Amino acid sequence: MARPDTVVNIAEKLSRVDGHWAPKTLLEANGLELKAAKLKGEFVWHNHPEGDELFIVITGELVIQLAGREDVRLGPGDMYVVPRDLDHCPVADEECHVLIMDAAGVVNTGGVTSEMTAEQEWI
Amino acid sequence: MARPDTVVNIAEKLSRVDGHWAPKTLLEANGLELKAAKLKGEFVWHNHPEGDELFIVITGELVIQLAGREDVRLGPGDMYVVPRDLDHCPVADEECHVLIMDAAGVVNTGGVTSEMTAEQEWI
Repeated sequence: MARPDTVVNIAEKLSRVDGHWAPKTLLEANGLELKAAKLKGEFVWHNHPEGDELFIVITGELVIQLAGREDVRLGPGDMYVVPRDLDHCPVADEECHVLIMDAAGVVNTGGVTSEMTAEQEWI
Repeated sequence: MARPDTVVNIAEKLSRVDGHWAPKTLLEANGLELKAAKLKGEFVWHNHPEGDELFIVITGELVIQLAGREDVRLGPGDMYVVPRDLDHCPVADEECHVLIMDAAGVVNTGGVTSEMTAEQEWI
């Protein structure tokens, strides 16, 4: 499904995201959802068996720790695809604004239930 | 497939895109490809039966004409999903830089063969 049938502005949507580690869904295309999130601090180690996860950094700096691989360091305009099933843990020393694209319905903490597990919500 | 296994910077990739209406592939995630393109002038009417097409405008202004619907007008940071099968024709009065996400292997002009039909190329 393709939705919404309207223009979506990244900055306007990010201005409406409250809290950290709580992605909000902006659009759906080809069974994938694009979400906006504000990140600060360290997340939890997890993975997504449903598919790859694309990060696009809008502002700030994000480090993605990867199991058995070197950390990936992202600044504004940087993108990285975390492969399906790969354990990873994002960290942001200062608040960082990102877009994240996942298979529709993916939970932010994967199979790990944590206080950081977020309900899906569209904005 | 998730690739490449490296950080991809949007501005750096766009600086290496030559010409107009010739998208270059930057990354693949979940069977979709994210491409960078420079657009100027009017494209050709076409559609993509393989899936929805996501546009993200980085710089400039883009109008997407849609069959039987009002035009969609996008500025920097704006995104829009053209639904699968819907005839559309992008127009940019001045040069516009965009990211486009399509099903892997989608041809820029859909089923229409035109002088604007581009070969797939990674950068």
